[in-house]
Amino acid sequence: MSYAKLDAHCRALGALEHALSILGTDEATNMAPGGGEERAEAMATLSGMYHRQATDGHVRDWIETAKTEVLEPQQKIALGELERSYINMTCLPSDFVERKMRTSMRSEQLWRSARPNGDWQAFAPALEGVVSMMREEAAMRAEVLGLAPYDALMEQFDPGNRTAQITPVFTELKAFLVDFLPAALAAQEERLAKRPLKALSGDYPVERQKALGIEMMKAVGFDMNHGSLSISDHPFCGGVPSDVRMTTRYRTDEFLSALMGILHETGHGLYEQNLPKDWAHWPSGKARGMSIHESQSLFVEKQIGRNPAFWNFALPLVDTHLQENWTMEDLLPHVHLIKRGKIRVDADEVTYPLHVILRYEIEQELLAGTLEVKELPEAWDAKMQASLGISTLDDPKNGPMQDVHWPSGSFGYFPSYTLGALMAAQQWAAIARINPEVERQIAEGDFSQVNEWRRDNIWSKASTASTPDILRQATGEDLNPAYFIAHLQARYGQ
Amino acid sequence: MSYAKLDAHCRALGALEHALSILGTDEATNMAPGGGEERAEAMATLSGMYHRQATDGHVRDWIETAKTEVLEPQQKIALGELERSYINMTCLPSDFVERKMRTSMRSEQLWRSARPNGDWQAFAPALEGVVSMMREEAAMRAEVLGLAPYDALMEQFDPGNRTAQITPVFTELKAFLVDFLPAALAAQEERLAKRPLKALSGDYPVERQKALGIEMMKAVGFDMNHGSLSISDHPFCGGVPSDVRMTTRYRTDEFLSALMGILHETGHGLYEQNLPKDWAHWPSGKARGMSIHESQSLFVEKQIGRNPAFWNFALPLVDTHLQENWTMEDLLPHVHLIKRGKIRVDADEVTYPLHVILRYEIEQELLAGTLEVKELPEAWDAKMQASLGISTLDDPKNGPMQDVHWPSGSFGYFPSYTLGALMAAQQWAAIARINPEVERQIAEGDFSQVNEWRRDNIWSKASTASTPDILRQATGEDLNPAYFIAHLQARYGQ
Repeated sequence: MSYAKLDAHCRALGALEHALSILGTDEATNMAPGGGEERAEAMATLSGMYHRQATDGHVRDWIETAKTEVLEPQQKIALGELERSYINMTCLPSDFVERKMRTSMRSEQLWRSARPNGDWQAFAPALEGVVSMMREEAAMRAEVLGLAPYDALMEQFDPGNRTAQITPVFTELKAFLVDFLPAALAAQEERLAKRPLKALSGDYPVERQKALGIEMMKAVGFDMNHGSLSISDHPFCGGVPSDVRMTTRYRTDEFLSALMGILHETGHGLYEQNLPKDWAHWPSGKARGMSIHESQSLFVEKQIGRNPAFWNFALPLVDTHLQENWTMEDLLPHVHLIKRGKIRVDADEVTYPLHVILRYEIEQELLAGTLEVKELPEAWDAKMQASLGISTLDDPKNGPMQDVHWPSGSFGYFPSYTLGALMAAQQWAAIARINPEVERQIAEGDFSQVNEWRRDNIWSKASTASTPDILRQATGEDLNPAYFIAHLQARYGQ
Repeated sequence: MSYAKLDAHCRALGALEHALSILGTDEATNMAPGGGEERAEAMATLSGMYHRQATDGHVRDWIETAKTEVLEPQQKIALGELERSYINMTCLPSDFVERKMRTSMRSEQLWRSARPNGDWQAFAPALEGVVSMMREEAAMRAEVLGLAPYDALMEQFDPGNRTAQITPVFTELKAFLVDFLPAALAAQEERLAKRPLKALSGDYPVERQKALGIEMMKAVGFDMNHGSLSISDHPFCGGVPSDVRMTTRYRTDEFLSALMGILHETGHGLYEQNLPKDWAHWPSGKARGMSIHESQSLFVEKQIGRNPAFWNFALPLVDTHLQENWTMEDLLPHVHLIKRGKIRVDADEVTYPLHVILRYEIEQELLAGTLEVKELPEAWDAKMQASLGISTLDDPKNGPMQDVHWPSGSFGYFPSYTLGALMAAQQWAAIARINPEVERQIAEGDFSQVNEWRRDNIWSKASTASTPDILRQATGEDLNPAYFIAHLQARYGQ
């Protein structure tokens, strides 16, 4: 039976994915400095092997034959998603995939060495190589999928997402934020003039922060039997659903950034841990894509973790672990602090979308060839000035060199962050509509009902529908920026 | 050109080996407890994939054609070793390899859960399954290789090792030790009566022990740019030559066991790090086998690390890191302490070979079917009583349940430990013959010449000759227990 052959095929691919995922996590957390070259070589070879197996001609035959077999509804959905994934993967020949892996890993390594000194001249040629490669890739994908090149790239990260829907939403959001940000900053200044920020004690040992973080992870539902928390330079959530590898980084003079980072990654981890286990090796059993993934992390970090109600539960834990003795009035101004800045990953929820929309606009121009890498510092600066009133012209390290995405060959990925923020607000509103007690529950540290909704409407759906369809089925409507805008107005307005 | 095809073939296999090796290390050091089942599944699938690729029929054709091509001498050796490895691997069908991986991983997991309570009844059926599978395997290997079944198993671990050579050596060694052990214990008792063991302070924080360990690793030549030291329940040296993963475990009431463990694993690590890099992906560029590997670890641990000369260099470092204030007369009796015990891994260099010879004898009987698993506790006890004067009948946890080897399907591996000890003594004697200054150099912390000999004669040879041939080329003679016996007499005699 062809369906059974496809099941074995998915299991073999699953093993390679498992290996690549753990090797990637290991590279960031445990690899010896001199091990990078061999690791890059091994991962490139395994990726090529994965790609060759995934795109083998037999698979198409098996899919076609399986369509004629008697299948359960879930099997039909799995088959459809496998076909979608197969078509996406057969856009690119194996040798291109290996070349891309090598080019982007080397460019990423160069980025790591050039970034600390902001050495744009050393880095730019590598980025040019990546951009030229990405133009090739976008063209190949567009051809096969019958999509515009940028949509064809986004399709990998969020099936069903299209600039035609996203650009108007981003345009509305940007227009709102450019007006709202100065007003919100002024309101904050007024509040802080009346009651200045309470200084942090500035002595937070890593071990205590870790214990606090793990208690929070468990409280919001993370299963420590199927995951762990360690340290890396750039926090991420990797590993596999049965063993989710979360990482964070700590500063000892401050605790909120690590704690919020942990809550963020916990959101990703909850999604992974609660995917349907029986379908783990089929594409339909995997997380839907980047923007829904980000909606899950931002749901925990922003909708829960920065909700004043949450801090009724969380503040006593902070006191216990870090020996602080804070009131809500001391803490919330820290949790809700907003400011203009150059760095996306340090941005708050008001300014963050402006960083993302800038990248969304620029990467479309880079791919279209209406902008070249050598013009990037000026283009970046102009947009930063227009939306955030900040110049980065003399500081490429904190301008176009700040992110790993482009050097590592991820184009079409950035919008997911802000789409995730919008979806998280829309999901929260859907929950609050049917469960008016949600804030009281969270204030008591009871996350069972909020997680039940997410399990039923997001986690268990995995990749059984497109990104816009999952959002629509869960919340009853298409992507609507009004919820996020209302959320910001309520939390940061006057 | 077929040789070029084989080069690409070896590179693909190298990537899978890299993945399996890092996944194995990760399992022992970083995996979440609930991640075991998926990991076992992924590793079994990858092993099957490795085996299918390694044993593909094309490989035989390429090897045959490559033999007719114009090759450099090193390429001819590489081709010969690849053929040897190919024949060893084609002894077993892919489905048997996957079944073995699953059976042994599950049996190992059962062993891990049953061992703490010494639950022999729960564990024995799993071991019976493994033994029956190993009889199948030995028969299949023997058939193809034209060797006796046990020799065919040893051939995987140490090409060229045969019971015909080893049994007489072990018989001589066992006869010597059964007499020597009581005499050495009596001599020790006499010394300790005159000058009792100085008690340890018993307060050795893990971080300080780790710093001391890393300083020792670097001193004897370990490259920290291509390796690291972490913690696991069972110390091992894993990873890949470009990123050697050493582990140890610490007790805070005692420091010598961790330090000696680190020196031992450093010996393994030095071998891996100094293999010829250009041949890393070919079988001829890999470490020769288990007994030469063990000769390298025991060389560092016993020939160097327990040599009084070494402690002239090492003692001040212990003082610095652990704030001890010991003299050589305080320390050496700890370093050279011998005693009878049930546990192989806790044994000293005098008693260790008796533990190994016991297993060598028993596993041959298990495979031949002259002993069954249900008779194992009695057989073990009888041999322990005869050679070490200890009974394990009421303590299976510390009897036949103590080692991971059999539950994980490693038969024919145990002799390597003692063969390694014999070879290390033989290598040390060869060095001392041509370099009478070796002890003075070591006393000064200068390991350059001793490492140069090892690089030239062992490390750089990798798998370019059989185990007995490498020993013979390096030391000028066949395996000779006289060096090890003389070493024990000099260090532990009256």
